[in-house]
Formats: sequence, structure tokens, C-alpha cells
Amino acid sequence: MNLKQFVPILEWLPQYSKKELTGDLAAGITVGVMLIPQGMAYAMIAGLPPIYGLYACTLPLILYAIFGTSRQLAVGPVAMVSLLTAAGVGVLAEQGTETYITLAVSLALLVGLIQFGLGVFRLGFLVNFLSHPVISGFTSAAALIIGLSQLKHLLGVDIPRSHHIHEILWHAIQQFGHINWMTFTIGILGIVLILLGKRIHPAMPSQLLAVVFGILAVWLLGLTDYGVKIVGEVPKGLPSFSMPQFDAATIEALLPAALAISLVGFMESIAVAKAIQARHKNYKVDPNQELIALGIANIGGSFFKSYPVTGGFSRTAVNDQAGAKTGMASIISALFIMLTLLFLTPLFYYLPKAILASVIMVAVFGLIDYKEVIHLWKANRTDLALLLITFVATLSLGIEQGIGIGVILSLAMVIFRTTRPHIARLGRIPGTRVYKNVERFDNLEIRDDVLIIRFDAQLYFANVNHFRETLESYAVQLGDQLKAIILDAESINNIDSTGVHTLLDVIQDFRQQGIDFYLVGLKGPVRDALTRAHALEQIGIDHLFVTIQDAVDAFDGKTPRNIEKKAPITTQSQSK
Amino acid sequence: MNLKQFVPILEWLPQYSKKELTGDLAAGITVGVMLIPQGMAYAMIAGLPPIYGLYACTLPLILYAIFGTSRQLAVGPVAMVSLLTAAGVGVLAEQGTETYITLAVSLALLVGLIQFGLGVFRLGFLVNFLSHPVISGFTSAAALIIGLSQLKHLLGVDIPRSHHIHEILWHAIQQFGHINWMTFTIGILGIVLILLGKRIHPAMPSQLLAVVFGILAVWLLGLTDYGVKIVGEVPKGLPSFSMPQFDAATIEALLPAALAISLVGFMESIAVAKAIQARHKNYKVDPNQELIALGIANIGGSFFKSYPVTGGFSRTAVNDQAGAKTGMASIISALFIMLTLLFLTPLFYYLPKAILASVIMVAVFGLIDYKEVIHLWKANRTDLALLLITFVATLSLGIEQGIGIGVILSLAMVIFRTTRPHIARLGRIPGTRVYKNVERFDNLEIRDDVLIIRFDAQLYFANVNHFRETLESYAVQLGDQLKAIILDAESINNIDSTGVHTLLDVIQDFRQQGIDFYLVGLKGPVRDALTRAHALEQIGIDHLFVTIQDAVDAFDGKTPRNIEKKAPITTQSQSK
Repeated sequence: MNLKQFVPILEWLPQYSKKELTGDLAAGITVGVMLIPQGMAYAMIAGLPPIYGLYACTLPLILYAIFGTSRQLAVGPVAMVSLLTAAGVGVLAEQGTETYITLAVSLALLVGLIQFGLGVFRLGFLVNFLSHPVISGFTSAAALIIGLSQLKHLLGVDIPRSHHIHEILWHAIQQFGHINWMTFTIGILGIVLILLGKRIHPAMPSQLLAVVFGILAVWLLGLTDYGVKIVGEVPKGLPSFSMPQFDAATIEALLPAALAISLVGFMESIAVAKAIQARHKNYKVDPNQELIALGIANIGGSFFKSYPVTGGFSRTAVNDQAGAKTGMASIISALFIMLTLLFLTPLFYYLPKAILASVIMVAVFGLIDYKEVIHLWKANRTDLALLLITFVATLSLGIEQGIGIGVILSLAMVIFRTTRPHIARLGRIPGTRVYKNVERFDNLEIRDDVLIIRFDAQLYFANVNHFRETLESYAVQLGDQLKAIILDAESINNIDSTGVHTLLDVIQDFRQQGIDFYLVGLKGPVRDALTRAHALEQIGIDHLFVTIQDAVDAFDGKTPRNIEKKAPITTQSQSK
Repeated sequence: MNLKQFVPILEWLPQYSKKELTGDLAAGITVGVMLIPQGMAYAMIAGLPPIYGLYACTLPLILYAIFGTSRQLAVGPVAMVSLLTAAGVGVLAEQGTETYITLAVSLALLVGLIQFGLGVFRLGFLVNFLSHPVISGFTSAAALIIGLSQLKHLLGVDIPRSHHIHEILWHAIQQFGHINWMTFTIGILGIVLILLGKRIHPAMPSQLLAVVFGILAVWLLGLTDYGVKIVGEVPKGLPSFSMPQFDAATIEALLPAALAISLVGFMESIAVAKAIQARHKNYKVDPNQELIALGIANIGGSFFKSYPVTGGFSRTAVNDQAGAKTGMASIISALFIMLTLLFLTPLFYYLPKAILASVIMVAVFGLIDYKEVIHLWKANRTDLALLLITFVATLSLGIEQGIGIGVILSLAMVIFRTTRPHIARLGRIPGTRVYKNVERFDNLEIRDDVLIIRFDAQLYFANVNHFRETLESYAVQLGDQLKAIILDAESINNIDSTGVHTLLDVIQDFRQQGIDFYLVGLKGPVRDALTRAHALEQIGIDHLFVTIQDAVDAFDGKTPRNIEKKAPITTQSQSK
């Protein structure tokens, strides 16, 4: 047992030097500056008072720095998890109530426990089941929902909360006459400022610029008189310790949302952690330890009023670009936010909500992945269908349902693909020993007495009937001329017991009809399975060959070059 | 549209001749003789009065003869479907009540509609998802449950109905003092008679012999005075027309059982139909038309008091052996049973229930598949585990639950297997152009500057991380010596969009580290996917080769023999 494995901060803290501090300080403050508007804005997505976004930027960051394996990952509130929080807690309590806040904090504890458990039991591989099209469709839909949920703040009108975009848009149109144009102007100027700032320099703290602009505009011009909604009183001071509510009923009610957040949050975090690690190489990201670290960050945070957090995409990129060398950067960010909480919260009194809406909208509309749709239209229609179904399901049925349907459908597709696999009839390139798919090559030599078939999938229970039927229909087509079938098994990566049964049945059936059967290019795992089932004896060792031409030669009565009969039938024997 | 396709009786009836009638008559009467004891016995399994087993042997057989594609399949009540009927209806009504009977008949209608629908929508392939180990485990458990459910009739004691074998056995032991030894003797003699008869000749109507023996023994020796339970009054006459009860509540309550019966019944039927067809070849069995025919048989039957039927294993074998040439044999069997119903039912008055129990026990204990357990212990431990889990789940959780868990687990195993596929590092057989797995062959030439890897699965979302991590860990292991990676893609049968993304990412990553990347033996479907995604341009056409040795030669600066760069990149291009 190596303590450093479980407390990765021990890897770098003992050797920590001034050189690293320079980078970490610059990065920590840069990210801290980003966290102020983002934290408050994302809390708004989650349906929480803005201050809770800042609370979530304190202890969790320090805990991740201690237990996390990535040295640049910037943990904190992110848009997607905030949306999932709103969706999960929103069905149980009214936004803005004490109960709502209590439940959001309990959710962080539950998410933390789930992530910690997944990490301890090394179940991090579960995120592998989220395919690219599903993630893309889900993210685009979530971005659309998040963006439109901010429309009311941008327009200064009252739109009932909804996850149905047509409802939101319809309400927005109905409210056209009530738009607060001053609010709208500030919001649009905020968006323009952020986009301009980013264009001038990616590392420019343009979101903070928008915040400063908004505060000054409202304060100097007295815009509250024109109906511009502001953040108002933001309580001073650090989040105090309090036990999260955690009874059985709460757990049960929050469980679906907690599971979705655990996996989606981890997925976002591990993806960016790995991408950044690839540029550094002085450390390794361990998925299961990452789950443990995020789990501890969420558990610890929940005792200090934090709602669920994870590693964020854009902030991590900024952290890295700004020179972060170790987790110390995150600790500095957390201290920066803690100082803000202690002394600067009164400054946010006049911050217009429209500015927070503009921060959110710029962030999330960039996530809408229309390029992937165009790409998949050309590259892979099945995956495009998965993407669009996930997108539509997320919009119409809900956040967790959308991702659930996406995952189940993509697994069903994997199964479905192997139930009717690609089966090729092969012919010889004249004058060579090479056999190719007759449908892809012209002028191949094809014989009517020898059928050569390649089966491109594992042979298992769900495709054995397809295997048998395809062979039988070829046999019917060729009629009485057919004297032998050669199965090129090089692409059969696996065989289960149903596959073995069927293969033996098929061979026996054909031999009873006077059609001999040869196997070519058996792979290790398949050969092992056949050996254990005592199937090779029934097939006949003298009917196994290394190459197709060898089998053809044997059928023709010539001496094949690579007959397998001398090879002992053991696991370590001659098999590809 | 070909009418014969939908009404297959038109295939043979117009040419029907005396020669076929001879065989059909013998077979039809033989099966009819079997149907009398079996029908009554299986009705008892289903919890119905014995007469309902005979009702189910009338119209459904005629309807199947008209619409079915198999000419030897003997449709009627079977043990497994009877058990599923008892399990499904038993939770809704008390056995022996009018409601129970009504529901069993409604179940036949629902099963018929489901099967008809599955056939029309060509969903017959769904049965492919029942793997051999799952069927075996499920069948053995069901056989055990059925067999033990007859213990009360064999012992002449009262045992409460239960699907938990330990409860049944426990009750049986408690009732030891109350065993009716006369009943038990008759039952045992019945079993001995049936087994002996079968041993003397497989076509001997030994079940009917046991029935005759039982009736005579009770009647001549007045055994009812000794407490031997008899069938009693069996109503005379054909089943009358009546509308099945079919409201929404009934449908909803029966749906799980109906789904299970539809699929399990079809599976049993299609398996035996195909096995028998393989010996005839003068017709073809069409799975979807079979579903339609079974559907019509069940629907039609339900209007004449039939409970769910399907094609039975042993009766079909007897039908074929006795010389059945066409569906006329089934029609004759049905007429035989109808005559029995009209005139012979009084004969069954003294039939002891213990004899029916002995018919059932002999039939089902033969289904317990302990040989497969022994076989899989040696051949495939994963499939053994699936078998045993299905077996235990069926015994402990219930009939439908057992099969459901089995199916889900076997699909999960398929997915799981492909998430961590076999990955082989290859080395050259010295002096040849042949490359083999270094873990299975000794004395292969292995270079430290060129890593040759074969990936044995489709490359898709759930295994891309495994693919990347395996390559990266090899790269770390080889360190700075590594200059090129050659991916043998011959076993990659498919690639999805996540796979394409990852492959490009990995290639780019390695090339940035100064490690070149070659692809060898791309298959048609994979090449097409890469082409559509414009990935081949990024990989470089001059980095694609037909054989591993060609790629090695290219890396070494030699001219490879089979460089792909001249091949046009189209679907019909040079690809294996």
C-alpha cells in the first residue's frame, strides 16, 4: 500500500518550490477571478442564490487538490451539473425555498458518496458506456435548455420555469410587450463584451469585465429605477459548518439525479483531466482515484453548504494556460474566493442578473455541437440517429431520461450490429494465394464446388441463426455442385457455448449432405474454446489450416504447405 | 404478393394424394393417442380441469395446419407453456375457479395477438437473444418446478401450490404420515410402465397404456374406496364458441405472462420445426410465418375455450417418425380428439390423477439438462455461470423473472466481453513474412522500435479507452526506443464514430511524440467508415498496408510489395 496513491498531494508537496509557486499563483488568481461570475451564474442555473456558487468554490477545491491526481484540473460549479441539480431538486421542492437549498446540499453529499463508492470499487470504466454521439446529443440539448432558461433574466420578464423549449419560447413571445429593454440592453452588452474580450485575448478575464461593467452601469445610472433586476444583498462570510439532511426518504428521492450527476460530472472531469495530462506527462491521471477525489470534494463540501461540483472544461484550460503546475493553484483559487466572501460580497449588490445570464449564455451556446451533426451526416448515419434521438429525448423527456435512452440505445446498437454481421464470400486473386471479398474485388476466381466464407464477428448466441441461415442459403444457391465449405475464422474474435454447439451442428449437417467443412485461421481464444469443448476432435484436426489456400489444396488432394495436423492442440499451440 | 406465402396449406393441399394420406393417417392417429393423456396432464400443470387440455387439441391444430410452414410440427398443449400459464394466471385468480379458467383462455388470445404481431412486424429474430445456457438453465428449473408440482398427485396428499421447491419438499416431508400408498403405488407403476414401454419401442403409446392400466385398476379393484383420487366427470361434447374476456385491466394483468409465453412458446416450436425440416427439404420453415400461424392458432383457439398452445418437442418427433407428410396429420389428430370429446369422455371417469402425474414427471424430468452443466464446467465457465444463475433465479424469483435475468445477463456479458477485448502483441516467425501473437508462440522476432498490435474486436465507444490505454502502456514500457506502431486491423470488424475519433486522436498523439503509426489489413466496413469520416487523409494513404511485413518494410525504408497508395479510396477499392 502506497500512501501517495491515495493522497496524491504527497507526490508534489514535499518537493514544492518557488518556481512552481510563480505559475500556481498566476493561475490560481486567474481562475479565482473567473470563478466569481461563473460561480454566481451557475448557482442561478441550479436554482440557488448566487452566494451558493461561491460557497462551492471553497472547500471542494482544497479537497480535490489533496486527493486528486490531476494537477491542473479546476474543480467547482459547472453548467451541466448545475442543470442536473435544478432538474433533480426542482421536482421535489420549490426554487428559492429553504427546502430547495437543503436538498441541493444533500445532493452533493449523495453524489460524493456515490463517486467515492464507484472509485473504491474501481467502477470508473462505467463512463465508457457514454458514447460520443450520446454525449454530443445530450450536451447540445442541455446547453439549449440552460441557455433558454436564462431568457427571462436577459429579457427581464417572468417566464415560468420549464424544461420544454417550445413552452419557454412561447412564453417569451407572449411576454414580448413586457420586455424590459434596459435589462435586455445590459445583457446584450454583456454578451458583446465577453465575446469581444475573448477575441482580443483568450486569457482576458472578460466575464469579470462584464460583471464590473454591469455593476458600474446599474450603480452610476441608477438603473434599478428602470426595473433592472439585481443580485441584491449577498451575505458576507465563509460558509458555516452544518450537517446535511440525509434521511432515507431524501436519499431515495434524490438518487436518480445523484446517479446522473455522479457519472456525467465524472465524465466531464476525467475527459478534461486526461486531455490536459497528455500535455504534461510528469504525472498520471488515475480514473478511480479521480472518482475518489471528486467524491471527497463533494462530501466535504456538503458539510459547508456546497452543491455538487466537478472538474470544469473551460476553467481547467485557463488554469493550465495561466501556468498551473500543481494543485496549489486550486488552493490559491479557493483562498481567493474565501477572501472575496469575507470582504468583497457587498460589491455584488448592484450586479444585474442579466449580466449573469449573459455569462451563462455565452458559455453554453458554445457547447451546441452542430459540427458533429454535419460530420456524422457524412460519416455515420447510425451514430447521427443516436445523437439526434438523445438530443430530442433530452429536450422532450428530461435530462436523465435523455442520457438513459441514449446509453441503452447505443448498447442495443452494438448488440444489434453483431446479430447480423458482415459475411463475405471470398474468391482468389488469380495467380496468388490471396483470397478477397467477391463483392469488393472484380475478376476473382470463384469456384462452384468450394464455398469460402468469412464471418466478421464473434460467433455467439444472438447471431448463430444468421450464421447457419447464410451458409444454408449459399448451399441452396450452389446446389449439388457444392462439395466443400471453407470457413475463414480469422475475424471470429470469440465464440460462446451456443456458437460451439451451432458450429458443430452445421458441420455435421453439411457433412451428412456430402459437403465437407474446413476451418481456417482459428484465433487463440476461439481455438481454446473449441479445445475445451472437445470440438476439434469432431471437426477433425486434418480439417484445420493456417491459410485458405492450404485448405483448398487439401480439398483438391494436393499437399498443403501449412497443414495444422502436426500442431499439438494446447493453449500454447500454433494459433494466430 | 403470393397467397401461398400467407396460407401455406395451398402449397400441398391441391396436390394432395393417397400416398401422403397413408403416412398422415398413421401419424395423425398416433399423435392423437398421445394427445389424450398429455393434453389432460398438461392442463393439470396449467391448473385447469383436464378437459381443457383436450379442447386445446382441436381448433388450434387445424388452424396451424392451414397457416403453418412446417408440415410435421405437432401443435398443442406443452409442459413449459402450461407452467407459464399457471404462473401467470395463478397470481390473479384461485385455481379451480371460473375466473381462473376465463383468464387462461384470455391469455391464449393475448398470446396469439402478440405472436401474430411479432410475425407481421418480422420480429421473429428476437428469440435469437435466448442463448443456449439461458434456455438450458431455465428449462431445467421449470422442469423441476413442474415435476415437483405433481408430487401431491403422486403421493395423494395435500401440498399447497408453490413455486419454491424447498417449500414443496418441506410440505411433502411433513405429510409423510398421510401418504396414500395405494395412490403412490399406481403412480409408480405408471412411471415404470411408461419408461418400460419407451425402452421396448420409442413409438409405443406407453402413456396411453398407463392411462388404460390406471382406469382398469381403479374400476376393477374399486380403488376409489382406498382414497385414490380420480379425474371424475369429464363433460361430453366439443368446446362451444364463446367470446374471451378481453378488457384493458385483464390485458395489463396478463401481459408479462403473455410476453413470456409468446417468446418461449415460439422458441420451443421453431427449434423443433427447424430440426425436423432439416430432414425433409421439400419445404422451408419461415420463422415469421410460424409466428403468424401460432398466433392464429392461439387466437382462434381462445374463442373455443383453448388455453395457450405451441409446437411440442416430443409429439413432433413422434409425428415425423410415424410418417407425417403434411399438415393433414395434424388435422387428423384434431379430428381424433374431437371424436374422443364427442363419444369417449365417460371412459376417463376412473382415470387416477396419479397416472397423469406420472405422465408429466417422466416427460419433464427428461428435460433436466445436467449433462450441459458437466460439459460447460470443462468448456466455458462464463456460460456455466449464466446457466446456473438462470436456473437459481427461475427457482427462487419466478419463471418469467428467471428468463428475464438470464437474457439481460447474457447480453451484458456480450457487451462486457467487447469492452476489454483480446489485444495481442505480434512478432515475426523468423525467416517468414508471418506475424503471430508473442504470448502464444516462442522464438518470435520482436523489435523494440516497432510495436505491432492486433486488436480483436470492433472498435467502439465502450472499448476505445481500453484501446488507447493499452497502446499507451506499451509505449511507456518501450520508452524512447519506440519509433513506430503498426496496428493490425484485420480483426476490427467494425468501427463507430467514437472509434474513429479515438483512432485519429491516438495517431496524432503518438506522431506528436515522434512515434509513427501504420494501419494494416483494413476491412471493407472499417475502411468505408474511415473514408466517410475523411480519416484516411489524416492517417495518410501511404501509411496503409495490406500486410504487416509491408508496413515494417516501409518503416525500414525498403520498398514494400503491397503498398496501398495506388489504390483509389472508394467503397469498391482494394480492401479485404
